[in-house]
Amino acid sequence: MAGSGFESLERCLEKHLPLAELQEVKRVLYGKETRKLDLPSAALEAASREDFELQGYAFEAAAEQQRRPRTVRVGLVQNRTPLPADTPVVKQVTALHRRMEAVVEVAAVCGVNIICFQEAWTMPFAFCTREKLPWTEFAESAEDGPTTKFCQELARKHGMVVVSPILERDSAHGDVLWNTAVVISSSGAVLGKTRKNHIPRVGDFNESTYYMEGNLGHPVFQTRFGRIAVNICYGRHHPLNWLMYSLNGAEIIFNPSATIGALSESLWPIEARNAAIANHCFTCAINRVGQDRGPAGPGRRPHAPCTPSGQPAPRFTAHRDFGHFYGSSYVAAPDGSRTPGLSRTRDGVLVAELDLNLCRQVNDIWGFKMTGRYEMYARELAEAVKPDYTPKIVTE
Amino acid sequence: MAGSGFESLERCLEKHLPLAELQEVKRVLYGKETRKLDLPSAALEAASREDFELQGYAFEAAAEQQRRPRTVRVGLVQNRTPLPADTPVVKQVTALHRRMEAVVEVAAVCGVNIICFQEAWTMPFAFCTREKLPWTEFAESAEDGPTTKFCQELARKHGMVVVSPILERDSAHGDVLWNTAVVISSSGAVLGKTRKNHIPRVGDFNESTYYMEGNLGHPVFQTRFGRIAVNICYGRHHPLNWLMYSLNGAEIIFNPSATIGALSESLWPIEARNAAIANHCFTCAINRVGQDRGPAGPGRRPHAPCTPSGQPAPRFTAHRDFGHFYGSSYVAAPDGSRTPGLSRTRDGVLVAELDLNLCRQVNDIWGFKMTGRYEMYARELAEAVKPDYTPKIVTE
Repeated sequence: MAGSGFESLERCLEKHLPLAELQEVKRVLYGKETRKLDLPSAALEAASREDFELQGYAFEAAAEQQRRPRTVRVGLVQNRTPLPADTPVVKQVTALHRRMEAVVEVAAVCGVNIICFQEAWTMPFAFCTREKLPWTEFAESAEDGPTTKFCQELARKHGMVVVSPILERDSAHGDVLWNTAVVISSSGAVLGKTRKNHIPRVGDFNESTYYMEGNLGHPVFQTRFGRIAVNICYGRHHPLNWLMYSLNGAEIIFNPSATIGALSESLWPIEARNAAIANHCFTCAINRVGQDRGPAGPGRRPHAPCTPSGQPAPRFTAHRDFGHFYGSSYVAAPDGSRTPGLSRTRDGVLVAELDLNLCRQVNDIWGFKMTGRYEMYARELAEAVKPDYTPKIVTE
Repeated sequence: MAGSGFESLERCLEKHLPLAELQEVKRVLYGKETRKLDLPSAALEAASREDFELQGYAFEAAAEQQRRPRTVRVGLVQNRTPLPADTPVVKQVTALHRRMEAVVEVAAVCGVNIICFQEAWTMPFAFCTREKLPWTEFAESAEDGPTTKFCQELARKHGMVVVSPILERDSAHGDVLWNTAVVISSSGAVLGKTRKNHIPRVGDFNESTYYMEGNLGHPVFQTRFGRIAVNICYGRHHPLNWLMYSLNGAEIIFNPSATIGALSESLWPIEARNAAIANHCFTCAINRVGQDRGPAGPGRRPHAPCTPSGQPAPRFTAHRDFGHFYGSSYVAAPDGSRTPGLSRTRDGVLVAELDLNLCRQVNDIWGFKMTGRYEMYARELAEAVKPDYTPKIVTE
């Protein structure tokens, strides 16, 4: 069942546990229960017609005297690639644009203010292959590529902030590639971009053959609906990455990802949620779903990776079957509570209503920023990175 | 059931889920399953006689050509305070010494090499009261107080490393108090001490009225069985604290804690486990269990906290009933797997066999140290703490 057979943890527990025990299990696993949102029936019907899961939950905050509730609805999108990876590039991109158009239409009906797509959403996650063509042809300008223009239209049409993680071609700097998220304002303007700060070299995820570590630091984007940041994929394993976004004021940190079951599934519920707790902010963990269909049908290997000597590479199997992206997208709150995950196997949209006032409220209760001693850590880290650093080890 | 009624998450799931689903749920929740240890029947019988839970699990690592397995058994102890808190101090301490003597005897039969007691283990967790006497009378010298001497005897007798978290009286520096862990070598020598680096001001846990943030940095102790560190209680909320112990070479980080259900129970499975993942090390999360029996019987209030005007403080209820310490001690491994938790309600000892080779193996697979970009973060943190720092916020 480790692949696609097991639909979701939550549904399994709901099916088998008696109510009283279910409540205790949920409390221990998920903290304070999130309220289920009443989504419009038109949206639910459209989702059913378009064959994707649609779930909605709300996190609440205490009423304050000096601030009104700062309610925002975020949308997390997880989806399969609709066409096989050996379809011409433009057709694949267009099919994904059409799919997102339909998805965003439904999200808009649900009142979503900020939507975030999955990592490198316009393409199959081909960074296992170590091949360049045709995958590099999915790369676009962040400022005025076709996908950015497409997202600007969506933003204008729905008055929605769109976070669009793409493979970026940076023609102003020697035509290099970056793993980038473009943030588009609800006005339709490109608010800016942010880049993947940590690049994996794990199993088939040898992405360092495509792009380098991001050079844009930890920007936070002030949108009409709140301050957001984007921690792309492997950056979720690095607590300092989350911290710097938070120190720059992020209230919501999106984590668009592409990760497979065998590698990381038991880490998935831990890391983004820990980041929400540690940084007094909301985190939105988004993962792909399904298996990206390999670049060739049975018997055809147009893009099989080759060794330097021209022989088919030994990793061909991994290349053809990259493993199962397990979806399970979720939102975690600063008080440690979280929504259930979306399906492990289906396309889906998770709508979450957040009262951003909760961030400062939890900050005031737990006080991790106040008690963080960052000055000490800045000093200790600066020492620890020196080539001649001697670790502080006490011996008898 | 949020108090003492619910025995443990794992037992509930095992009782109700069909086997195939149970395996999937455990895989998603806990990762690779830990092997159950066959503990000696003499130990199990003694534990039953002494009325504490005894569980054992083993984490495995791959065989290597150049290193033998580096197997070590750790023991995590969670316990109630045996006597009411208004018993004379010396009697309470002596009763706890006797209890630990029996517990360590059993741990020794189980082959435990390193044992760690809970936070401030020689006393009720009285830091909610804001009273000084009699609680400050539990403080001892870390170097040669009666508890350190007691632990040295245990260490010598069993050839065991003992981690002893106490309330320290520092007579060499103006008689101040510290929340300290003393590390005693298997030879019986005091290897050193380490102090709680982050002090809570949360709800009733206003410990900053007793002691300040630790001033010993992030020492790691080279024992005969591996390199260990101690991140005391509230320090588990601070990812940088775990990181610095890890950068100094810790392979096992103990987290002796005292925390209650309403406050932190849904955070408990997340934070120490995230630290094991993020730092490629083992973490041992230890929590108190039960309710420390208040300092007075019904109708008597010898140590009720007072307001500055001498009126009984409004928090008297919280003082009398501090809430339920939920135990649930567990060990997490660098690959993200973990043991089940000990009981939420009973005294217990968790024996975990660790192959420390797993730390470097996972480091080589996931590479968070290699990809950590600490130099960038040292720089960014040093900027961020400046009073005139301007957060990096992009506006339209």
